[in-house]
Amino acid sequence: MHKIIVQKYGGTSVADTNKIKNVAKKIISYKKKGYSLVVVVSALGNTTDELIELAHDITKSPSERELDMLVSTGEQVSVALLAMAIHKLGYEAISFTGAQVGIITDKSHTQARILNINTKRIEQELKKGKVVIVAGFQGVTSHQDITTLGRGGSNLTAVALAKALKAQVCEMFTDVDGVYTADPRIVPNAKKILNMSYEEMFELASLGAQILQARSVEMAQKFNVPIHVRSSFSNKQGTIISKEERAMEDIVVSGVTVNKDEAKITICDVSDRPGIAAKIFKYIADKGINIDMIIQNISRTKATDISFTVLGKDLAKTMTVVKAISKKIGSKDVTYNKDIAKVSVVGIGMKSHSGIAARMFKALAKKKINIEMISTSEIKISCVIDKKSADSAVRAIHDEFRLGK
Amino acid sequence: MHKIIVQKYGGTSVADTNKIKNVAKKIISYKKKGYSLVVVVSALGNTTDELIELAHDITKSPSERELDMLVSTGEQVSVALLAMAIHKLGYEAISFTGAQVGIITDKSHTQARILNINTKRIEQELKKGKVVIVAGFQGVTSHQDITTLGRGGSNLTAVALAKALKAQVCEMFTDVDGVYTADPRIVPNAKKILNMSYEEMFELASLGAQILQARSVEMAQKFNVPIHVRSSFSNKQGTIISKEERAMEDIVVSGVTVNKDEAKITICDVSDRPGIAAKIFKYIADKGINIDMIIQNISRTKATDISFTVLGKDLAKTMTVVKAISKKIGSKDVTYNKDIAKVSVVGIGMKSHSGIAARMFKALAKKKINIEMISTSEIKISCVIDKKSADSAVRAIHDEFRLGK
Repeated sequence: MHKIIVQKYGGTSVADTNKIKNVAKKIISYKKKGYSLVVVVSALGNTTDELIELAHDITKSPSERELDMLVSTGEQVSVALLAMAIHKLGYEAISFTGAQVGIITDKSHTQARILNINTKRIEQELKKGKVVIVAGFQGVTSHQDITTLGRGGSNLTAVALAKALKAQVCEMFTDVDGVYTADPRIVPNAKKILNMSYEEMFELASLGAQILQARSVEMAQKFNVPIHVRSSFSNKQGTIISKEERAMEDIVVSGVTVNKDEAKITICDVSDRPGIAAKIFKYIADKGINIDMIIQNISRTKATDISFTVLGKDLAKTMTVVKAISKKIGSKDVTYNKDIAKVSVVGIGMKSHSGIAARMFKALAKKKINIEMISTSEIKISCVIDKKSADSAVRAIHDEFRLGK
Repeated sequence: MHKIIVQKYGGTSVADTNKIKNVAKKIISYKKKGYSLVVVVSALGNTTDELIELAHDITKSPSERELDMLVSTGEQVSVALLAMAIHKLGYEAISFTGAQVGIITDKSHTQARILNINTKRIEQELKKGKVVIVAGFQGVTSHQDITTLGRGGSNLTAVALAKALKAQVCEMFTDVDGVYTADPRIVPNAKKILNMSYEEMFELASLGAQILQARSVEMAQKFNVPIHVRSSFSNKQGTIISKEERAMEDIVVSGVTVNKDEAKITICDVSDRPGIAAKIFKYIADKGINIDMIIQNISRTKATDISFTVLGKDLAKTMTVVKAISKKIGSKDVTYNKDIAKVSVVGIGMKSHSGIAARMFKALAKKKINIEMISTSEIKISCVIDKKSADSAVRAIHDEFRLGK
């Protein structure tokens, strides 16, 4: 059999029948190069949202099993249409749902985890020379109940298939042509990163880059599946994400990201006793709210302030929860601030280089930008700053590390 | 387990989320009476047509396998939404695709035949007290390829499930409240028929009554599944279709139907040799065109005229075919007439009563309506007449047999 490539096309790439025809042409151009192709497709444009809206017309809290039954139809429509478009070009293609190709998941409806893929049928069809098209985002439990994989699920499907089929590469086609050192809309001289490690992409994904979700990067890393993020609209190389083994020259920082969708909550005058913080955050976690950064100001009195950030969409819910707990623990007040931004530098080179944080803080200080919170990991440093300084901060940091050169 | 009822709701009954909520209420009213309910649903309103249109945007002749993959999503959306609507009312329900409940069909995509139903999962869920909702119109081959059952497929699904589950009755909910002695829009005093035989319904279905397709009636008859055609909007008894065993009083004629969608084609001056007609009709059949009535006028010369009727939608295609064959067999001319209507009387009592045809012809003659073609079966007589006299013909025949009384 020829070398297998898995390609994934997102919802914007198949938003209407004309775009589907273009994707078909693109697929055939690869087919002609002699590859065996497995193509993963998302739902057309906004289909998923429209289906969810229908469900919400019926009930505020639809059953998750039925929601999966409903929204999984979106990808089924895409794969059938794409197969037809390939036929129209005179090539053989066959479409499958997640269930049909045996993408077996656990029972966690709306955010299922892939347990196993039975590749038999796919391999049979590839041997016949067909392009195999698989509905992204969906799977099936061992009891034949349809599941979906959650946000970025089509990327997960693609990575999982690439692993199961031992594909050469998993190509993610999207409306941008790769991962950049910063958002080009903010930093005009941002450069495309041609190669990066899973760890770097993982941090970038977690930090809000919309291209690849952290879960897919994690899975790709676990199974060592090379990912190529590239444009649906050109043939240029995009960004290849693989094991950290590139020449380690002096690329210390790979990119700068900004996330403007977080909000900061502060619980004031919390009694400074052991176990209080644990109590607060357990209570919040139990409500299914994810917390990002946490800082605690140690004060001279017996009380302290605790601040943390959450996604903007979770702010209202979190405030309700936090106000309840703050009464119980006798704190004086809870405040929030939506006008923040989190600016981060990411780079695998940071592991072996010191002074990165200092350079970042200096760049911000030069622009008179105040740092409200700081958090660091092995390969990233994040600062929370005032939202209106965010773009200028990204540019300053990008310049500081000479990423445009 | 409680007695099982299979209910089927068509596309107009679930055209939008409000109608789905109403169907859910109706289902629960039956549930409260203690029945175990299996509900078959069609796609929302015009969904199927919209999906087919998408396919035609891509290609004029879509692969039938992919077309089934595409259109089967319509019913999957309906079942999920209906399950949610039942949950909202506080009852348990679970939805299934045809594949999930093991509706196994042959491989004839777009018009598959049901081979077998594995009722295990349905029975498990019924035992748990759940309303089981099954996507109509679809099945799956033994290779897990999705199929659809063709026009009226949801009715077939319902009848097949009723048979497999040994249901007490298969209730077809629709926007009319039963089968009438004639179309009430044409004959104001038409009466609802409370009971009729499969044979009668079969003839009525074949003759253009839109309520039940001939295939479903045939299957119901084969497995002796009682069907109840009734309204989604009331609780009144509709028409019960079952084995012919009702009191045979003097109900000779059950109903009068009219079909205005046929056209008549005449091949003039066909050489009157044996085998010529067979040749013509084999040629037409090979093109997949269904022919209804055929008459051949035996003339005094060596040539004859052959007339037959086809569905209006097949007229253009048939004319092309017939013109080609008429040249080969040396006929002089081919003409057609779209302004015809076929009026029929149907009644199982006709088996044992003579003179029905004479009464029908007399009723038409009184109105000075000319009969162009006649065909008869054991329980029906059809006449082709001028289209503009159609309604008046139906009323005259309805009166003649006192069906309004």
